[in-house]
Amino acid sequence: MTAQTSALPDPETLALEGGHSIGGKWTAVSDREATFRAMAPARQHLLPTVFAEANDVDVERAGRTAADAARPFAATTRDQRAAFLDRIAEELEARGPGLTACAHAETALPVARLEGERGRTTGQLRFFAARLRDGLDFSPVHVPGDAARAPLPRPDLRVAYRPLGPVAVFGASNFPLAFSVAGGDTASALAAGCPVIVKAHPAHPGTSALTADAVMAAVRACGLPPGVFSLLQGRGFSGGQALVTHPAVQAVGFTGSLRGGRALFDLAMSRPQPIPFYGELGSCNPVILLPGALSARTEDLARQWAASLTQGVGQFCTNPGLVLAVAGPDLEQFLQHACTALSAVPPAPMLTGWIARAYQDAVTELGALPGVSTVLPPARMAPAEGTPAIFRVSSDVWRQTHRLHAETFGPAAIVITCTDLADLTAVMDGLEGQLTVSLQLDPDAAQDRAAATALLPLCSEKAGRVLFNGMPTGVEVSPAMVHGGPYPASTAAASTSVGGLAIRRFLRPVSYQDCPAFLTPPGQI
Amino acid sequence: MTAQTSALPDPETLALEGGHSIGGKWTAVSDREATFRAMAPARQHLLPTVFAEANDVDVERAGRTAADAARPFAATTRDQRAAFLDRIAEELEARGPGLTACAHAETALPVARLEGERGRTTGQLRFFAARLRDGLDFSPVHVPGDAARAPLPRPDLRVAYRPLGPVAVFGASNFPLAFSVAGGDTASALAAGCPVIVKAHPAHPGTSALTADAVMAAVRACGLPPGVFSLLQGRGFSGGQALVTHPAVQAVGFTGSLRGGRALFDLAMSRPQPIPFYGELGSCNPVILLPGALSARTEDLARQWAASLTQGVGQFCTNPGLVLAVAGPDLEQFLQHACTALSAVPPAPMLTGWIARAYQDAVTELGALPGVSTVLPPARMAPAEGTPAIFRVSSDVWRQTHRLHAETFGPAAIVITCTDLADLTAVMDGLEGQLTVSLQLDPDAAQDRAAATALLPLCSEKAGRVLFNGMPTGVEVSPAMVHGGPYPASTAAASTSVGGLAIRRFLRPVSYQDCPAFLTPPGQI
Repeated sequence: MTAQTSALPDPETLALEGGHSIGGKWTAVSDREATFRAMAPARQHLLPTVFAEANDVDVERAGRTAADAARPFAATTRDQRAAFLDRIAEELEARGPGLTACAHAETALPVARLEGERGRTTGQLRFFAARLRDGLDFSPVHVPGDAARAPLPRPDLRVAYRPLGPVAVFGASNFPLAFSVAGGDTASALAAGCPVIVKAHPAHPGTSALTADAVMAAVRACGLPPGVFSLLQGRGFSGGQALVTHPAVQAVGFTGSLRGGRALFDLAMSRPQPIPFYGELGSCNPVILLPGALSARTEDLARQWAASLTQGVGQFCTNPGLVLAVAGPDLEQFLQHACTALSAVPPAPMLTGWIARAYQDAVTELGALPGVSTVLPPARMAPAEGTPAIFRVSSDVWRQTHRLHAETFGPAAIVITCTDLADLTAVMDGLEGQLTVSLQLDPDAAQDRAAATALLPLCSEKAGRVLFNGMPTGVEVSPAMVHGGPYPASTAAASTSVGGLAIRRFLRPVSYQDCPAFLTPPGQI
Repeated sequence: MTAQTSALPDPETLALEGGHSIGGKWTAVSDREATFRAMAPARQHLLPTVFAEANDVDVERAGRTAADAARPFAATTRDQRAAFLDRIAEELEARGPGLTACAHAETALPVARLEGERGRTTGQLRFFAARLRDGLDFSPVHVPGDAARAPLPRPDLRVAYRPLGPVAVFGASNFPLAFSVAGGDTASALAAGCPVIVKAHPAHPGTSALTADAVMAAVRACGLPPGVFSLLQGRGFSGGQALVTHPAVQAVGFTGSLRGGRALFDLAMSRPQPIPFYGELGSCNPVILLPGALSARTEDLARQWAASLTQGVGQFCTNPGLVLAVAGPDLEQFLQHACTALSAVPPAPMLTGWIARAYQDAVTELGALPGVSTVLPPARMAPAEGTPAIFRVSSDVWRQTHRLHAETFGPAAIVITCTDLADLTAVMDGLEGQLTVSLQLDPDAAQDRAAATALLPLCSEKAGRVLFNGMPTGVEVSPAMVHGGPYPASTAAASTSVGGLAIRRFLRPVSYQDCPAFLTPPGQI
């Protein structure tokens, strides 16, 4: 237990707002309307705060206040927005112990992990603030006019970037801070100059309320219009659906399941005015073990993979749930070492009871599929827990079994044993879109070098990020990060939800033709 | 008549392929399958060539050959693709007289316009070739690793851009060359490294076949896989629908009507794997006449506007079909001068018989709407012709009448008379998304300067391009052009279908993490 944890407040005594934050004010929680409480997954008991369930009236009010804020916020300078992001980071730090205690109670994620995630969250906010100050995402393109050009004069043209308008952000279950209320989507949308309406994830409403309090304080401190930020609570689907179809909303950021994300994507596309939907919906994150690497680093690879697979009880978007390798004694050794490492991992509570039930059901289903053999059966799990499991299949069985292509959220993996490298390549060819593909290779082995060279275009075709001799968990916040990929990894394959390029999702170019000197194209130059 | 026109061949004696071009070969036209012939709009008679109607089998073959070509084409260098685009331009020039004669017969567009449009088309191809050689769209972002960073080493990350895969391009009726088979969408997709399958517009199948012949010759000359380019003919909807839903197709470029475009957009979004749909669907292109400009340049503005409104019989995406001005004697003068200028425009054949019928019906409908008064009634029109018409409404009637918000394809305009600048601003606020907004202002008039400053954010919010003291027809091919805008002007507001940024529609970033020195990330660096 660290120094911080001993100073954490009792989460059950924290004074948490149970209403929505709309236009700078908390709404009252009425006992005549639907409400819900959060469940502490580690102890499977309900936490005390009663939270409101967003209805159409709440969504309408949030949409209207965001629409009112959109123009003044679009007119802020990049420096003003950078100061705002920095201030949100400071306000989060000021609420650090409460946030950690609340998130620990609501998600059962370890305290050290949550402290680290807070650092990632404030780091992201400051990263986008720095990005605003350097101005790269807003660099205008200017082509001066030429009155002498024949047959027609060339007009003066200048491209500037402007925000799309209010953005709906859906908090993710697995990152209560870094991909939630003040997470990457919110930070990049605010950086772009778009008001944000967050639909909080129902698994951590208290953490969401505390985070919203930090953002609201920053809005006030920076003198911004209050509609720049709203938070809606809710356990049901209808609030989120109403939000995606609200006419004021001009784009959506979402991280979650394929099923839920696709349903919201379909709503966004069927609006009278369709809007961009940036959804990150799931990925199996294949790890390819080339023969030389498998032979040279058998035990190391097994340990690294086991650690990546079980990090955060396997509840990462980039969890390496699929392994591709050529059958043989090296692979058997690898699996033995992996089983040893994984057997030492104690059962741990998952984020919510229903996530744990879904995981336990999936593991039971996978083990019972024809042609699937169980390498590591899951240890006995308490109701809210998840423990690692490994299954293996031949490439033929994998090709014929649709269920094996889907992500299992949790620390389970499928190992596809291929007959040779050509078979492995064919498996890759049949893969759906992925967030990541990891290539384990021995650069000193001629066979691995040749195989990696041949496989690289296919890896690039299937994923948003290709790793070499690394495991996919741990997504660097960098100008060169792509956290996205072909569908279903993302509904917008050309975008990323992490890193510098994320801000571009919420901007569009406008071309100004022969703009007179007394006028400056607004906002973003 | 120019020197070129006298040398034009008789379009009815040109030997035109009537089949589809699939994988480098022309298909045979079978009399057991559906066929169609093109109608010469100027003389309302059928042209001799019999064209095939694409069915599911044709689409499947085109999709498969494009999929086969996608990987080798993605692996070409930028220089190879630049040489390919240049060669297409040369092949088009070699077929110049035949193309002009055929397009003139099929579209009734004047020969000089078609010669100019060919120049625009070859210019676009060479523009993208130059853009490939300068490499700007492919500039990698590289953040070197840092093994010493605490608590974790920073990975080496490098972003490269790769093509999405096969692109379906729908030819437009109004630009048989520049927005059709080898037009902007095709040029930018090929530049990105994406194979292209064109669905030709049924109004100019012969022009499409001749253009396809030029592209096929360039494919052969450059030694590219034949599936890099295919052309499908057809008059019905089913071929295009099958193309948009074919699993090999990874993006769509479309220019056309709101109704047809939205139907294809909906298909693209409802696929198991949704794909980007870059549709340019329609725009009224409002021209705002600020009081100072209206007073200082009454007659000049009227003449410039009348010329822009009737260019190409009003069949431009950027046709200025909406005028906003404050009521008063200057506006009356403007309208009188405009009527004089427009009355001198002779009736002219529109692109097709059904476009002319739709235009004539729309003009009749507009004139009969409650609250709409006719300023310039259309002159008597022959069946395939269009003549200019002007209607005027109060801002209240415009707000209440949904029909007045839709584009009328042809040389008709609606003038909204506003009570004052606040009323004009309110009208702008209620506008749908537009390709362009044009602001006419007198920079020496304080009132205009203030009004322009106040209106600029709203103009930016509504359009992809804002013009100052210009008319919107004539879209410069420039690195700083945006030909797009909020829906319904475009289904992808952050993209452009003209200019340098168009190539980015067909690329996506991939991040390479710790890529070893012996491997070069494929294709696009």
